[in-house]
Amino acid sequence: MGDSIGTSDTKGTLGNGTLGIAGVGLIGSSIAAAVKSRRLFRRIIGFGRSVERLEAARQAGLIDDLFVDDDSACRDVDLFVSCLPVDRIVDSVRGAASCMKPGSVITDAGSVKGTICEALGPEPAPGVTFVGSHPLAGSEKQGFENADANLFLDRVCVMTPTGAEPASAVDRVHAFWRGLGSEVVTLSPAEHDAVLARTSHVPHLVAAALCSVPTDEELRFAAGGFRDTTRIAAGDPDLWTAVVSANRGAIEDALALFIAQCEQCREAIAAGDESAVRRFLITAKARRNQFTAVFNNAMP
Amino acid sequence: MGDSIGTSDTKGTLGNGTLGIAGVGLIGSSIAAAVKSRRLFRRIIGFGRSVERLEAARQAGLIDDLFVDDDSACRDVDLFVSCLPVDRIVDSVRGAASCMKPGSVITDAGSVKGTICEALGPEPAPGVTFVGSHPLAGSEKQGFENADANLFLDRVCVMTPTGAEPASAVDRVHAFWRGLGSEVVTLSPAEHDAVLARTSHVPHLVAAALCSVPTDEELRFAAGGFRDTTRIAAGDPDLWTAVVSANRGAIEDALALFIAQCEQCREAIAAGDESAVRRFLITAKARRNQFTAVFNNAMP
Repeated sequence: MGDSIGTSDTKGTLGNGTLGIAGVGLIGSSIAAAVKSRRLFRRIIGFGRSVERLEAARQAGLIDDLFVDDDSACRDVDLFVSCLPVDRIVDSVRGAASCMKPGSVITDAGSVKGTICEALGPEPAPGVTFVGSHPLAGSEKQGFENADANLFLDRVCVMTPTGAEPASAVDRVHAFWRGLGSEVVTLSPAEHDAVLARTSHVPHLVAAALCSVPTDEELRFAAGGFRDTTRIAAGDPDLWTAVVSANRGAIEDALALFIAQCEQCREAIAAGDESAVRRFLITAKARRNQFTAVFNNAMP
Repeated sequence: MGDSIGTSDTKGTLGNGTLGIAGVGLIGSSIAAAVKSRRLFRRIIGFGRSVERLEAARQAGLIDDLFVDDDSACRDVDLFVSCLPVDRIVDSVRGAASCMKPGSVITDAGSVKGTICEALGPEPAPGVTFVGSHPLAGSEKQGFENADANLFLDRVCVMTPTGAEPASAVDRVHAFWRGLGSEVVTLSPAEHDAVLARTSHVPHLVAAALCSVPTDEELRFAAGGFRDTTRIAAGDPDLWTAVVSANRGAIEDALALFIAQCEQCREAIAAGDESAVRRFLITAKARRNQFTAVFNNAMP
């Protein structure tokens, strides 16, 4: 890691005040766990719809206070992070913004940025700034029971400021993700969505499509390769349906690109072109090895 | 597990004599490790091309003797298992068979069965029986350094007898895989190849195709989903080129089926048909969960 974390500088930029988190799923609760262990905020307020889940997260020590279907406590919040599914982020940010003080800042953790940033704009309420974010971290596990204070450590977090936000607000969101241990990379919302379609959204759909290739009876003959290749297909269908809806164009393009790759491979096989198949596999192995090197050494 | 393993019955069927293994890669050496730990044979002879690799495997205690480019020692072998890449199995079985005693038995561990079983037939030399096998176990790891005596435990092993073999030979191969802890399932060579194309060979090609969807610069934005979905693309390109060549027809069919699934998904996305996307993801998750239940509880 380049910079130190949890220093007085980071705390100064963050204000050491109150953090609001909407949603105590894996991402929201892992943010809470990381903030607690790094003492980045004095107080964490959890917002959501389920009093049972929020109260259990409070008892687990992840949040200090909780508010159910009630944004009024956002007046005390310095930084608000919406960790809801992508189809609920816009509403939650608008609700929070309407109660927050001028000068306060909002970000999110949604895996789609274009539709969200466009709907909200840089100033969802007077004096309140929104800057989109997407921490590239996660798991097929769900819920605060799997909260991991190191989930964001040495991972990339994409921020998508539009240029219209006050620099101090952008700095605060940047310091927040740096404070959780992430490397922050800035992209435009459209760039983010095109890249994520290729690195995350299409792999998810491909894993799902693979699940339906063997018949029910044939699944007993599937082994380790099938297990790994299809693992992410166990993710939440509603959550991923919302991702697909929010990033339709880029996903459609990336899926067409992938299908063309498969079609080219199928044609080489049909033609008995063994050297084309070998080149295809050699190229894939090299790129996979390149990915592994980058992934295992994500921080500069 | 239903039956006991390493009982005097299993040992009686196996003969407790000499096992020959061609190839000391992951599969061959894991068979050797399992046979040693379960004391299924008195002696293991390793056959291969590299004196360095064989000698190192002997020093690691996996094999007792070694012969390089020399099948003559097969006259002492009761059961011979070819664990070479699929494009070298036929030659290695023919070489071994030409030296083995009448009544001895040969099998293999190749992930393609049709072309191999057809080329060899049930009696590759007078009185010597060949029965095809494919243990559904493996790893992207290679070499005897990763030998695992439990690699076959509670995994499925497919046997593909043609019906023309003596029952005693089929029983011996069956007892061998049972002795290593596997559940044995009998399929025809063509059935095996069609099923494996759908459960293993196409997932491998799909993982490879996914590697080329992001650009080099975009790989830093790939995370855990990409890592798992593409893991098997790190496998040996030569080994997999040989698999594709040996199972062309079935792989082409299965790949076309998979492409059609992707195309259907792409069309639903393009049409904005959110409920079709949700159904696609719900079906995939259910099948993935079904696979997990079968995989984690493979033994009846």
